[in-house]
Amino acid sequence: MATPELRIYESLSQSLKPFQPLVEGHVGMYVCGPTVYSDVHLGNVRTFLSFDMVFRYLSFIGYKVRYVRNITDAGHLVDDVDHGEDKIAKKARLESLEPMEIVQRYTVGFHEVMKSFNALPPSIEPTATGHVIEQIALTEQLISNGFAYEVDGSVYFDVTAYEKIHNYGELSGRKAEDMLEGSRNLAGQSDKRNPRDFALWKRAGKEHIMRWQSPWGEGFPGWHLECSVMSTKYLGETFDIHGGGMDLKFPHHECEIAQNKGSHGHAGAQFWMHANMLTLNGQRMSKSTGNTLLPEELLSGKSAHLTQPYSPSVTRFFIHQAHYRSVLDFSDEALNAAKKGHDRLMAAFESLSKRPTTGPKVGSFDTDAWSNKAHAVMAKDFNSPLLIAELFEAVKAIAADRKDPSVLGTDGAQSLMTQMSDWLFHVLGLMPPQQVNDRMKKALDGSMKLVISLRQTARETKDWATSDAIRDQLDAAGIIIKDGSEGSSYELK
Amino acid sequence: MATPELRIYESLSQSLKPFQPLVEGHVGMYVCGPTVYSDVHLGNVRTFLSFDMVFRYLSFIGYKVRYVRNITDAGHLVDDVDHGEDKIAKKARLESLEPMEIVQRYTVGFHEVMKSFNALPPSIEPTATGHVIEQIALTEQLISNGFAYEVDGSVYFDVTAYEKIHNYGELSGRKAEDMLEGSRNLAGQSDKRNPRDFALWKRAGKEHIMRWQSPWGEGFPGWHLECSVMSTKYLGETFDIHGGGMDLKFPHHECEIAQNKGSHGHAGAQFWMHANMLTLNGQRMSKSTGNTLLPEELLSGKSAHLTQPYSPSVTRFFIHQAHYRSVLDFSDEALNAAKKGHDRLMAAFESLSKRPTTGPKVGSFDTDAWSNKAHAVMAKDFNSPLLIAELFEAVKAIAADRKDPSVLGTDGAQSLMTQMSDWLFHVLGLMPPQQVNDRMKKALDGSMKLVISLRQTARETKDWATSDAIRDQLDAAGIIIKDGSEGSSYELK
Repeated sequence: MATPELRIYESLSQSLKPFQPLVEGHVGMYVCGPTVYSDVHLGNVRTFLSFDMVFRYLSFIGYKVRYVRNITDAGHLVDDVDHGEDKIAKKARLESLEPMEIVQRYTVGFHEVMKSFNALPPSIEPTATGHVIEQIALTEQLISNGFAYEVDGSVYFDVTAYEKIHNYGELSGRKAEDMLEGSRNLAGQSDKRNPRDFALWKRAGKEHIMRWQSPWGEGFPGWHLECSVMSTKYLGETFDIHGGGMDLKFPHHECEIAQNKGSHGHAGAQFWMHANMLTLNGQRMSKSTGNTLLPEELLSGKSAHLTQPYSPSVTRFFIHQAHYRSVLDFSDEALNAAKKGHDRLMAAFESLSKRPTTGPKVGSFDTDAWSNKAHAVMAKDFNSPLLIAELFEAVKAIAADRKDPSVLGTDGAQSLMTQMSDWLFHVLGLMPPQQVNDRMKKALDGSMKLVISLRQTARETKDWATSDAIRDQLDAAGIIIKDGSEGSSYELK
Repeated sequence: MATPELRIYESLSQSLKPFQPLVEGHVGMYVCGPTVYSDVHLGNVRTFLSFDMVFRYLSFIGYKVRYVRNITDAGHLVDDVDHGEDKIAKKARLESLEPMEIVQRYTVGFHEVMKSFNALPPSIEPTATGHVIEQIALTEQLISNGFAYEVDGSVYFDVTAYEKIHNYGELSGRKAEDMLEGSRNLAGQSDKRNPRDFALWKRAGKEHIMRWQSPWGEGFPGWHLECSVMSTKYLGETFDIHGGGMDLKFPHHECEIAQNKGSHGHAGAQFWMHANMLTLNGQRMSKSTGNTLLPEELLSGKSAHLTQPYSPSVTRFFIHQAHYRSVLDFSDEALNAAKKGHDRLMAAFESLSKRPTTGPKVGSFDTDAWSNKAHAVMAKDFNSPLLIAELFEAVKAIAADRKDPSVLGTDGAQSLMTQMSDWLFHVLGLMPPQQVNDRMKKALDGSMKLVISLRQTARETKDWATSDAIRDQLDAAGIIIKDGSEGSSYELK
């Protein structure tokens, strides 16, 4: 079947827009990556898994995707305005480490978390420190275009000059003045012409460890600069998709757009996409109130908020059960419900994969119509919850087919299995139940075959003492015997 | 016990020198990392595992080590002289990828291989592209010191000027002229004043993808520059240890030393260390002759050179069974022998960890003397083969102790177990036998207990048909029954 036209909710226009890539068959996608000054939090995990799903889906429907996700390893100022201390340098001082040791520790940790959740590596993973020259060049360009000015070794973006031509705030509907909200009025911050202006380059004070030579003396880049520079370098002045968490819309993405338009005239991406926030038990996560959950805590179950561990596959299932643009609330209850759904889906898929080739070739279940629906919901802004609903329609058909093999038929079962495998493992990134140790499984099967026949003999000869002893010993070993019409089998508890 | 004084074979002085770090309790170590333009080869694996062992040992004896290992993601010219094409850009053209996509693919692959062999991540892993500004600054410094000159947008190191003051070739005993050996006399390569000079910065031709703005126009750094820059940035102008493969001695490390001395007057490291080469079946590995073995092939056993797969732990054991400064020959036969030794060592350790608390407190085996010997051999230039020999002395004692628990005694057994665990897992980086699925292990133990008692009954009642049938069925399931004086037990084949 032909893949239906993809439509994406585009944040700048606030509307569902048909997706046409700039270059036929290719997609350029930039996603704002993590700041590696502490462990990645669950909100980041949700954002990156949402865009992992988008990346997987785009590749699945045939696009060659260049997916760029950066690592912010410098220049992210503590309060996201533009005074204060660099987050990474601050952490380094606290732990008496060279800032790049902090960067290394948390980059390794971030990669491990992403891998554990089965997220594919991006095509390019550029770093801010790896693009200081380009950031200096963009700053020079903005100065020469009249949208930036230097004061005492620092360079600021001139929002007033920019607004004479462009519209600052078009993405978020917020104004540059909002950046001042809650910001302290620090001494030494008065070198801007206007408090709304934001830093492109900051002069490094004596105590500042991360510093580079620039035309304005030693300093370091402002946080917003790197994404304009790296998206342009690897994807071009205009490219297809720019993604990030909703919290980055303002001021980060507004500043990015201003830098892009101010330097080369284009906003950058054709499609700005934003993944929504995550709450825990109905409230914003916050370290200070203890309402937090780390990815490791989720996987180990070691958290006061959880009654049990949840696997990476269950977590992904749970995340994709909500649309990426909806707020998602994590709670033990909701995760537990997701676990049941996930396991039911996996069990149905496993039973389908073991289906005997019985029944007619063509069944009553219309796999083509099912396939069309699954594609259609995903093509409408990556609606993974509706895709999962379709997958549960398939689960119903599989259950019906177990009683009556004319429901799927042999061809239908084959087609459904292939399609389900694609959606479950390739697009949603779920993981098949862990492969058990094959050698041991074989040994246990062989050993249990003997035990079951021993028990059978005991039962036939009415040797209840032996048969009970076997039951008790197996129970102690965590094994349950199931007696069926086709003989007995065993299961682990 | 006091750790004996560490002595390290130092390549510049070609002698065993007592190790004294520049800063008490701290060690700064720089190791030349991989060029990420293709899969990491086994020779690299050996070098990086050798320095991983050095890193582990230094940390084990109490040093706080800052271990810097770079990623060469640009600037490595194809023929290691200084004409020709950038390796990464060439590969990118071949595969129609952006060079940084190549970098990402092989960086991810390199990290996976290192992790599979249980190598610890370095403290900092800087990239060449992340330090272009610093490379430009070093080049400017060399020009201003009179050791470099610019010609048509490229900058060369002036070996003749350098030799008026310093001695080029002090590490390898080779001369800069040797760099010309085998190099083609390409047109456009005649801009050097002297063929012995090497490139610090190259002008980027139109077709060159990776390029940066510099005081000499758009270009890219020469390969040797990054290691001088990154070791100085993260460890200082003088630091403790510089490591790398033997093949990097010339010209790479000679050029590094010349750059260091030319810019700040010091060679860089106090101790230059070199890990030796690796051969396969007695011959140099070479893609063109097919005499190659990739790390994945080693682990999967899918190679014409192998009869079976070898685990990462067996591979590490095999590598550390040779001294890092000896040539190491990989062959199926040698790996197979190593596997047997490795498994014997692991089995002895496992049996020690399960030793019943029998026998006297103090045994006849002198664990203190053993400990002193183990420390002494490692303190003499990280002599891991002699350490492994000591570990086999412990294996003998463990075997003797199984028959007579007065050999180790309860205290001796405890002490030996702790020490062996440190050497095996912390210093040599071997991995304990894979944790089997605990649930399944418990089930198999319970099930086999029943089968063994069934077999016992059959044997006691001389029911040979049943006892033979059990043996055959277990054999088919991959289980072997072992009859001992304390009853029967089972093992997986």
